[in-house]
Amino acid sequence: MSHNDLSSTFTSNIQAAPAATGDLLDSVDTPALLVDLDAFEDNLARVHTRILQAGLQVRPHGKAHKSPAIAHKQIEAGAHGICCQKVSEAEVFVDAGIQDVLITNQIVGMRKVDRLAALAGRAHIGVCVDHPIQVEQLGDAVVKEGTHIDVLVEVDIGHGRCGVANAFEAIDLARTIQQYHPHLRFVGIHAFRGSAQHMRQPQERAAAVTSAVEKVRGIVQELEAAGFACTTITGGGTGTYMHEASSTLYTEVQPGSYVLMDTDYAANKLEEGSTPLQHALFGLCTVISVQAGHAVLDGGLKAFAVDQGLPRIQLAGWSVKTLSDEHTVIIPDDTATPLHVGDKVRLIPSHCDPTVNLHDWLIAFRGKTVEHAWPVSARGALF
Amino acid sequence: MSHNDLSSTFTSNIQAAPAATGDLLDSVDTPALLVDLDAFEDNLARVHTRILQAGLQVRPHGKAHKSPAIAHKQIEAGAHGICCQKVSEAEVFVDAGIQDVLITNQIVGMRKVDRLAALAGRAHIGVCVDHPIQVEQLGDAVVKEGTHIDVLVEVDIGHGRCGVANAFEAIDLARTIQQYHPHLRFVGIHAFRGSAQHMRQPQERAAAVTSAVEKVRGIVQELEAAGFACTTITGGGTGTYMHEASSTLYTEVQPGSYVLMDTDYAANKLEEGSTPLQHALFGLCTVISVQAGHAVLDGGLKAFAVDQGLPRIQLAGWSVKTLSDEHTVIIPDDTATPLHVGDKVRLIPSHCDPTVNLHDWLIAFRGKTVEHAWPVSARGALF
Repeated sequence: MSHNDLSSTFTSNIQAAPAATGDLLDSVDTPALLVDLDAFEDNLARVHTRILQAGLQVRPHGKAHKSPAIAHKQIEAGAHGICCQKVSEAEVFVDAGIQDVLITNQIVGMRKVDRLAALAGRAHIGVCVDHPIQVEQLGDAVVKEGTHIDVLVEVDIGHGRCGVANAFEAIDLARTIQQYHPHLRFVGIHAFRGSAQHMRQPQERAAAVTSAVEKVRGIVQELEAAGFACTTITGGGTGTYMHEASSTLYTEVQPGSYVLMDTDYAANKLEEGSTPLQHALFGLCTVISVQAGHAVLDGGLKAFAVDQGLPRIQLAGWSVKTLSDEHTVIIPDDTATPLHVGDKVRLIPSHCDPTVNLHDWLIAFRGKTVEHAWPVSARGALF
Repeated sequence: MSHNDLSSTFTSNIQAAPAATGDLLDSVDTPALLVDLDAFEDNLARVHTRILQAGLQVRPHGKAHKSPAIAHKQIEAGAHGICCQKVSEAEVFVDAGIQDVLITNQIVGMRKVDRLAALAGRAHIGVCVDHPIQVEQLGDAVVKEGTHIDVLVEVDIGHGRCGVANAFEAIDLARTIQQYHPHLRFVGIHAFRGSAQHMRQPQERAAAVTSAVEKVRGIVQELEAAGFACTTITGGGTGTYMHEASSTLYTEVQPGSYVLMDTDYAANKLEEGSTPLQHALFGLCTVISVQAGHAVLDGGLKAFAVDQGLPRIQLAGWSVKTLSDEHTVIIPDDTATPLHVGDKVRLIPSHCDPTVNLHDWLIAFRGKTVEHAWPVSARGALF
């Protein structure tokens, strides 16, 4: 065989689902990601109710779950659309019937903006900008496609990543959009501070949002004084959504991790009287080796993201020592019940977004029974 | 639409390749993984020559690249088979025409061993054991399938993960295999120490292999004295392959990262006079935002694994500050040339195996031109 045509000879593969509807949880192949539907549904209802009752719209972030099945449940629970970070993610969700997608990111490169402009012929699409080059590329693409895209100016409210710094830059972008790009619609402001989501003390998170609201309110006032109406002010996340909801400024909140949760978000101290969201996402692993002083599980760095620390095992007396590519080593304390080769154990991921992105399937269960194998359809949607 | 049948409604997606044969490197969509073919071929030839000239066999590890195209190049360069960690990986490589696969791991669970036993009807398959339960499950499966599998007893040589501790346990497993499981063939020892691969000083790595060789030699002698011939002694990796090659004990070496390389392996100090292997793997990203004091790239934690540290940018004056899910923030020093929105930059991953596993494609290039889009066909092969 000539290897000049290997590209066409070999194809990529989707793994077969590790379980099917009706299977017992004990029979799920491992390593797999499980979603506890009771916890998931409780998280979903609780966060949506809080945001909707405050009079804001909820637009959950699809980057957290990458799963059309979950997006549809979010829409059923009152979300008016979803967020994505990538054009290729948005394509997956629109293909699956989601009609309103905001890309909370800067999209650069004609290959991507052409795809986004084409997608806008099939769904209501919004996107963020913080530089005239992005506006120009988008403007050219939507004219070619004959479509329209909503554009939000991203404002940096302390995240230190993307976003304009002040009203001057925001007005400049809004003016460019309005004057030169009739197929683009300036609709408002995207203002998100990822770091605020994970501040551990509730008063720190509240203060971060208060300071962001002050900055954004000033920019919105200057934009509107210059004739640029801001109908959408969007941002916030699982750690701060209650503050954006009561801000009297934001019109829309973008929680992502709230339905699944992880140990990083669970480490946030809550406001007095608040009920914590429940862990709904679990990694299921099999014990493949038992040694004096440790046991070895069949999922490692390719099953669990570790950027926010190691996953936490849900088994009294055992703790996670280390992960390598395909293995997790767990160690017992004096109180631990011995494990045996073939036993299955659950772990709580430390960071749900990049962990979900390692898997082709989410196995949704209730009690001891698998209800669905949900494909992680936007897994690997990098472009 | 009812969401009871979402599993069948939505499917997982493979991303379209970010480039095609003949494309200029500048036009590759981002974030993408690039393979520099000149460096790749040099690494391949150099390591294989060293091992083959010492009279050992080379069985490269497919877990590092998960790509049948690369496996075929390794076979063409003298490898007599490849290693995998998972049954589902092995299936991908056998489907692609690789005829000899060793699973350097313990396989537990009837669903997996049944698949492995079936696979043994289509290729020469080996697997590791360290416990009688694994032997029993494998033995039952191969009888059902009417196939044969080679079995290696894994010995723990200081890795502290899987493996028997001594000759007594090794003989016990070999006897169980030979007496009770005629469809299993005891062929020898798997002895790998991952931690030794990354010891920074060459004399530490040499000493670790020397001590492992002593332990394994003793166990092999006792096994053979008990009537169990060890025709295969396999292990070693990119950090130590030259020591196993000169051990007069190992019969086979299993390097994995050597063809692609990463910053973690490159941090190893080499023996005097040794030429370092070349970085052949690069992440290509686009600058999507430029701010006072930093710039933002369009690939983050879903494009680069960070368990061994941040990726390193290949651009004088710039360094990586932080990664979030979809972004990398880079910062300039006084000597840095300014970047612009739309510029493309390369980064060297810190750990090639889990980074490759995040991508559906490897874009193989020479000079400024794309030669192949190689599918990462075993990406996500967790089972």
